[in-house]
Amino acid sequence: MAFTPTDYLPYDFANRRHIGPSPAEMEAMFAALGVADLDALIAETVPQGIRQAAALDFGAPLSEREMLWRLEEVAGRNKVLTSLIGQGYHGTITPPAIQRNIFENPAWYTAYTPYQPEISQGRLEALLNYQTMVSDLTGLEIANASLLDEATACAEAMTMAMRVAKSKAKAFFVDENCHPQNIAVMQTRAAPLGIEVIVGAPETLEADTVFGAIFQYPGTFGGLRDVSAEMEALHAAKAVGIVAADIMALCLVKEPGAMGADIAVGSTQRFGVPLGYGGPHAAYMATKDAYKRAMPGRIVGVSVDSHGNRAYRLALQTREQHIRREKATSNVCTAQALLAVMAGFYAVFHGPEGLKAIAQRIHLKTARLAKGLEEAGFAVEPEAFFDTITVEVGLLQRGVLQAAVKEGVNLRRVGKTKVGITLDEATRPATIEAVWRAFGLVRKDEDGAAEYRLPDALLRESGYLGHEIFQMNRAETEMMRYMRRLADRDLALDRAMIPLGSCTMKLNAAAEMMPVSWREFANLHPYAPADQARGYAEMIGDLSEKLCAITGYDAFSMQPNSGAQGEYAGLLTIASWQRARGEGQRDVCLIPVNAHGTNPASAHMVGWTVVAVKCDDQGSIDLDDFRAKAEQHSDRLAACMITYPSTHGVFEETVKEVCAITHEHGGQVYIDGANMNAMVGLSRPGDLGGDVSHLNLHKTFCIPHGGGGPGMGPIGVKEHLVPHLPADPLTGGVAGPVSAAAFGSPSLLPISWGYILMMGGEGLTQATRAAILNANYIAARLSGAYEILYTGPKGRVAHECILDVRPFEKSAGVTVEDIAKRLVDCGFHAPTMSWPVAGTLMVEPTESETKAELDRFCDAMLAIREEIRAIEEGRVDAENNPLKHAPHTMEDLVRDWDRPYSREQGCFPPGAFRVDKYWPPVNRVDNVYGDRHLVCTCPPMSDYADAAE
Amino acid sequence: MAFTPTDYLPYDFANRRHIGPSPAEMEAMFAALGVADLDALIAETVPQGIRQAAALDFGAPLSEREMLWRLEEVAGRNKVLTSLIGQGYHGTITPPAIQRNIFENPAWYTAYTPYQPEISQGRLEALLNYQTMVSDLTGLEIANASLLDEATACAEAMTMAMRVAKSKAKAFFVDENCHPQNIAVMQTRAAPLGIEVIVGAPETLEADTVFGAIFQYPGTFGGLRDVSAEMEALHAAKAVGIVAADIMALCLVKEPGAMGADIAVGSTQRFGVPLGYGGPHAAYMATKDAYKRAMPGRIVGVSVDSHGNRAYRLALQTREQHIRREKATSNVCTAQALLAVMAGFYAVFHGPEGLKAIAQRIHLKTARLAKGLEEAGFAVEPEAFFDTITVEVGLLQRGVLQAAVKEGVNLRRVGKTKVGITLDEATRPATIEAVWRAFGLVRKDEDGAAEYRLPDALLRESGYLGHEIFQMNRAETEMMRYMRRLADRDLALDRAMIPLGSCTMKLNAAAEMMPVSWREFANLHPYAPADQARGYAEMIGDLSEKLCAITGYDAFSMQPNSGAQGEYAGLLTIASWQRARGEGQRDVCLIPVNAHGTNPASAHMVGWTVVAVKCDDQGSIDLDDFRAKAEQHSDRLAACMITYPSTHGVFEETVKEVCAITHEHGGQVYIDGANMNAMVGLSRPGDLGGDVSHLNLHKTFCIPHGGGGPGMGPIGVKEHLVPHLPADPLTGGVAGPVSAAAFGSPSLLPISWGYILMMGGEGLTQATRAAILNANYIAARLSGAYEILYTGPKGRVAHECILDVRPFEKSAGVTVEDIAKRLVDCGFHAPTMSWPVAGTLMVEPTESETKAELDRFCDAMLAIREEIRAIEEGRVDAENNPLKHAPHTMEDLVRDWDRPYSREQGCFPPGAFRVDKYWPPVNRVDNVYGDRHLVCTCPPMSDYADAAE
Repeated sequence: MAFTPTDYLPYDFANRRHIGPSPAEMEAMFAALGVADLDALIAETVPQGIRQAAALDFGAPLSEREMLWRLEEVAGRNKVLTSLIGQGYHGTITPPAIQRNIFENPAWYTAYTPYQPEISQGRLEALLNYQTMVSDLTGLEIANASLLDEATACAEAMTMAMRVAKSKAKAFFVDENCHPQNIAVMQTRAAPLGIEVIVGAPETLEADTVFGAIFQYPGTFGGLRDVSAEMEALHAAKAVGIVAADIMALCLVKEPGAMGADIAVGSTQRFGVPLGYGGPHAAYMATKDAYKRAMPGRIVGVSVDSHGNRAYRLALQTREQHIRREKATSNVCTAQALLAVMAGFYAVFHGPEGLKAIAQRIHLKTARLAKGLEEAGFAVEPEAFFDTITVEVGLLQRGVLQAAVKEGVNLRRVGKTKVGITLDEATRPATIEAVWRAFGLVRKDEDGAAEYRLPDALLRESGYLGHEIFQMNRAETEMMRYMRRLADRDLALDRAMIPLGSCTMKLNAAAEMMPVSWREFANLHPYAPADQARGYAEMIGDLSEKLCAITGYDAFSMQPNSGAQGEYAGLLTIASWQRARGEGQRDVCLIPVNAHGTNPASAHMVGWTVVAVKCDDQGSIDLDDFRAKAEQHSDRLAACMITYPSTHGVFEETVKEVCAITHEHGGQVYIDGANMNAMVGLSRPGDLGGDVSHLNLHKTFCIPHGGGGPGMGPIGVKEHLVPHLPADPLTGGVAGPVSAAAFGSPSLLPISWGYILMMGGEGLTQATRAAILNANYIAARLSGAYEILYTGPKGRVAHECILDVRPFEKSAGVTVEDIAKRLVDCGFHAPTMSWPVAGTLMVEPTESETKAELDRFCDAMLAIREEIRAIEEGRVDAENNPLKHAPHTMEDLVRDWDRPYSREQGCFPPGAFRVDKYWPPVNRVDNVYGDRHLVCTCPPMSDYADAAE
Repeated sequence: MAFTPTDYLPYDFANRRHIGPSPAEMEAMFAALGVADLDALIAETVPQGIRQAAALDFGAPLSEREMLWRLEEVAGRNKVLTSLIGQGYHGTITPPAIQRNIFENPAWYTAYTPYQPEISQGRLEALLNYQTMVSDLTGLEIANASLLDEATACAEAMTMAMRVAKSKAKAFFVDENCHPQNIAVMQTRAAPLGIEVIVGAPETLEADTVFGAIFQYPGTFGGLRDVSAEMEALHAAKAVGIVAADIMALCLVKEPGAMGADIAVGSTQRFGVPLGYGGPHAAYMATKDAYKRAMPGRIVGVSVDSHGNRAYRLALQTREQHIRREKATSNVCTAQALLAVMAGFYAVFHGPEGLKAIAQRIHLKTARLAKGLEEAGFAVEPEAFFDTITVEVGLLQRGVLQAAVKEGVNLRRVGKTKVGITLDEATRPATIEAVWRAFGLVRKDEDGAAEYRLPDALLRESGYLGHEIFQMNRAETEMMRYMRRLADRDLALDRAMIPLGSCTMKLNAAAEMMPVSWREFANLHPYAPADQARGYAEMIGDLSEKLCAITGYDAFSMQPNSGAQGEYAGLLTIASWQRARGEGQRDVCLIPVNAHGTNPASAHMVGWTVVAVKCDDQGSIDLDDFRAKAEQHSDRLAACMITYPSTHGVFEETVKEVCAITHEHGGQVYIDGANMNAMVGLSRPGDLGGDVSHLNLHKTFCIPHGGGGPGMGPIGVKEHLVPHLPADPLTGGVAGPVSAAAFGSPSLLPISWGYILMMGGEGLTQATRAAILNANYIAARLSGAYEILYTGPKGRVAHECILDVRPFEKSAGVTVEDIAKRLVDCGFHAPTMSWPVAGTLMVEPTESETKAELDRFCDAMLAIREEIRAIEEGRVDAENNPLKHAPHTMEDLVRDWDRPYSREQGCFPPGAFRVDKYWPPVNRVDNVYGDRHLVCTCPPMSDYADAAE
């Protein structure tokens, strides 16, 4: 008998695992949509004129297991040495309980940014712990919930200083002891803004010539300087003082606040976050209370809910560029939430005594190492240090560095005759002995007493982490339960669809996540020699090639750590190119009014003038207005920034014309890749006329949102722009770097690469088609009950749809917020609210949701529509109804119930699971109260009391 | 300034992470107990006479990171080749979603056996899925929730056959095609029971001479035989027919039920459970409906709760030896729950189409491999096969095997001239080509059509996995949410203390768990050449040495897969020794009446007569009775079995005398190690006079309970017994083997070894002391409200305490069950109920719980006492009160409330978390209904409907 293989392919990741609707479900959806098949739907949705010529072809897709084998192979080409390079990156020990229960737990990593506080109390508390930790350790009143990396945090601090300083000076002083990558990124940022960066020794500071100054503490070569005098001088000149401080050192040395610093920044990587060849990690920023409203980034604050109970939320959200673009303090849109959560838990896990002991031990080891070298006659600098020393070795430099590598250790090359060494909590006696051997010394390292080598005057006098959360019992049993309790308070992708328009909350497959934890990816220092990172190079090379094939570009830079940073990097690339061809005067950027709020903010950051272009009532670019504006600014036209498909979810047929007009007038085209999930395999921005695009790998390419970061926003460019891509932060190039690490957050790349390898070209294309199918299915089921805004000529939407709920405000007094909160009762995260059109909901289901889950959502939305109708028809009170009281909590249920609707209706509306009901921990949170009474560190422990009685 | 290291040791695993009470908490506990310090408490608790002479000393303890480094080093000494050895163990692909969300998720692995169904609905559903899968694939009506391994399942099937067969024959027929380890374990089991085992070719079966027969399907050399005729003959002779079947093969070939088999057994390892050098994996057993009550092992069944809603539970529990020891069907006490859950999810994940496709592909690969060999002129047997072939190679055997190893592949040595090859789902074309090369052939393997080589007559005709749970959408998003929903329904250690007396539910630290997933431990075949398992050998060697130091024994065998199996193995060891010294007539075993129920069952299994010894009213052995019974049976005394400290939690001072008396009369002393958590570092069973003990590594040494398995019950023995330890299942020895793999479930051993390495001798001792402190603290806080049974002379308990709640039945009509269920409302798993004394609760907090958690528990228990008092005093109705209605569900809360107490009191009693409230998914489960209406496969899907409407 001949073997007839079944047509069921159990290892077909694309169709069996990643794409939600099963073949049978798809058939039912076609019927509901009145189309014969997926081809027919796509034909009605995506205009023929913008379709790509050839299908994506990456060869046969890999199964999950094959992909993991492939990644093991590539990972094996990375060599994991012990890196004592320092320079802002340190070996660390991630407590296994944190690795397992946070880093590798979908309840944490699949969560979205906590914009909906009622379903985010767990991670908000974790981030508040982090802020409290930063605030305490820096000695400054307020901290944000993290920034992308230390170098960008320095740049943000510089521009913040410019905003708040009363000094009218235009220059900014940078301590020459700053890490080189920090200096480079600040210089990149400063140039387009007209800031003169003065790099010099601290003693050369002339305070009255600058609006601000930054000092590294300890310095990149290990020195510790008390900058109190500099701070005083700056303050006298009405300028702002910034300290970039090592978070571990602050456990022992005088804190920036005590020296008078106005702003402190730094990395929290060494608090338990793996090196990852550069990222992701969370950078911190803290400042004085007086400057809190000028601080960029997200800030978690304390507020109350509708019953007056304590509730956490993102504070001062109105500052964010996506809300009020004119008021944007920067284009910073994301944070490194998952990594900040880890660093915060590291502090909770060790407590102040533990952190201090770890810091002491690091110092002790460094003192022992230095003593050994000194006794052998080597000149060790500086006299006093925390964890970093620099050794003069003359002509031996190359020999010592090579010998160290042979011993399995990377040291830092400093100048032409010196070697830098930085120790960390993972340094073992064997490592110290290996370093000695690299210097030709055979010695035994013995734990024990050593001289303190910190400057006496800089010993920290104040306590820290006095809050009870850092005093809790740190038995692992207790920690594990605390992490679980926080996780359970939140609603993430592991429990329900998160139908957030423009955010593409798709599956983050377990197979994709696994390699991120592998030591070959996790434990590489970003400045390790290239021959130790061959695996990374191979992965980045292949991933770049595939992204080029997907987008129609010629090269990619992985450097940007977020979509907004990608935009900024892309515009810098264009500006550099314009300058290089002698058109440096071009500084006008055309941006349609419906653009992402980050677009104008990014244009401002490169010093450009934004000229807004009108949209028609379909949300599409007004071509006449575009042409007119382009002509009007023809001499100064630098670029246009467009989003495709449009932020209204429409494939505009005029896109090629828009690009042509721009090129005609000497401009470059930036196509925002936020909506790439509607294009992969169907259409390529590079073919449409784009010169640059960023991709949100955390949207289209499966990097999880992590509760508000990490992100990855690599940019693709056409050939002519390649020389102008962001430079290596250490070696430099035509354009400057935008991040501290050459490849941004490379340890995330296995996720996107693994995804592409498992999907293959056909699978990726099918995913796009399924995403469009899912969105159209929701639109079809809800139309009638809700008006669907902005459909294409055939009445179809792209990969998301906008539900117009504005009429209900008039008809029933029901706001978009009421509906969003009512969806929590139904067990859903709300869709994107009030964007791109105020008073609407934008729904993006992604391809990963099953028809059953879409139906659960539609059932919920239809039931909500009926609840609105009951108000409209006067059957229900306009103020006392399930919508206004949403979300409902267990507390509502246990309390006396005096509502005109039943407990059942209130708490178990259609969509809500019964046994598996998700209960928000708080009722509706009061945003105004929180901003008026800003509290951004942990409240007294008594308020945490959770057990009854 | 001199460096003064703080005395805080952040990497001190024992005191910072593993032991719950912090130093400050301990001080408060001493005050509550009225002792000066821990030494004073231990002096009052553990008699000086039984204390060990020297403190445990294992050198400096390792930090978590150091331990992981050490294990990486040892893991690196294992060589992971591709094993095509087969023989019941196969390469498999664990779906990453299952690995992450089940295997590595504390919500699953820290759960206890689901004896309390109200808090176990998630894993009960998962196990019901597993049973349904087994039942469908074997074509038999009912399956249990797993057994320890295939070999023991064969032995269990044999003894079950003996119980149910109407034939009076005493012999049992074993197909010579059975895997050698299955034959060996059945022979071990048969001997003491007087069963004659006849091993022969199937055609030599004489049905009327046997009470049963077992056939391997496919046979160990690959042959597939239709045993319908044999089954008919057996039935005609009133004997029982058993098939040991490969679960993967059953996806393609005729199922045992269709051939008339009465019982089917086998391993589910290849359904996604890593090889683990032998275990753990779940063995299955299925049988006809008529025999269901004779089937050993746990069975999940369907019942209803007090509101008539569907609820799952363990069925027929009264059969278990711990409930009615006389009725015990075997000493089987545990299952392999976690592994069965994984295998069940593997089936849900792939569905019937997926499983069939996987099986087809395995077969296709094997057919291609065979064809290549045949075309080169090799003689391949058998003609028809599923995944296993045997190749005649004559003198080339050694050469082929060695060449294969060079190619990275292990083949099986069969006889002196043959080589066996078994393929699996992980076999890649490159592997097939490597095998060919080992045979000297250079060929390219090409996927595609091949001849079906299965016997036409044995093609499976029936469908399977028709239930909707196996038809669900298998997108990973959906699977991930399903796993999360089930996990959330259960209460495990990751949310609350599980104060189960005698079960030692201590911390399973994340660092201990991590190495289990490493490929160097996970992917070794149990019969791989020893030089590929040097890492395992080193670990097992060092762990054995340390266990010897802890227990005072001279050697350990890791073979037993559970505590009960350890008992059985220990008694076999004694029996073998008695035989060897010519005292084979000794067959009396003295067992005190308060012994674990497994003790008498184990004694029965080695063919001994149990003589019960009285206890006094303190639960201690009645020494006079013991002496009298020993004298009475002096000639026949084989052994005594005692538990230390006693099952009543008392350190009996007479233990040495008991041992001496036994030895005096020629007996050996078996000391049950279940309570070893009260002894480590303080007292050694070997010093007390024990000759053998088993240790429950899943109690004292941190292997998680996995929701009811895996377990590990290694035995330690004195020098003279060493030659009589369980033999290697393949090579044999003086005594027989008890498990299929020489080291039982070795992939679990990194957990226990890592624990010991991190604790060090002092840490282990401190853990014991803290366990005693915690138990005494609870006893002190609850005494007054509850009577504490069985305290020592100074009024102290050991590591657990018994609360006497019998009086309340009379005073208030409140049963032990009412209290247990009420504790669920308070957010706790109940203590051990009605054991060792009916109508009591035995509480064992372990050292890992913090004082805060102990207080939460005590608060709950004290509040319950007040609720009882209210009934006693007539203030509350005896039938309509929170105790009788417990546990309360969300459904109670949302329903109209007509109770005489408030919702608040009902649902949020003291102890219960507020925001983080655990809600049981069902009300109290009706056990009687479930046993009367036994349903042990998945109910119709409509009943699962969970979403509201």
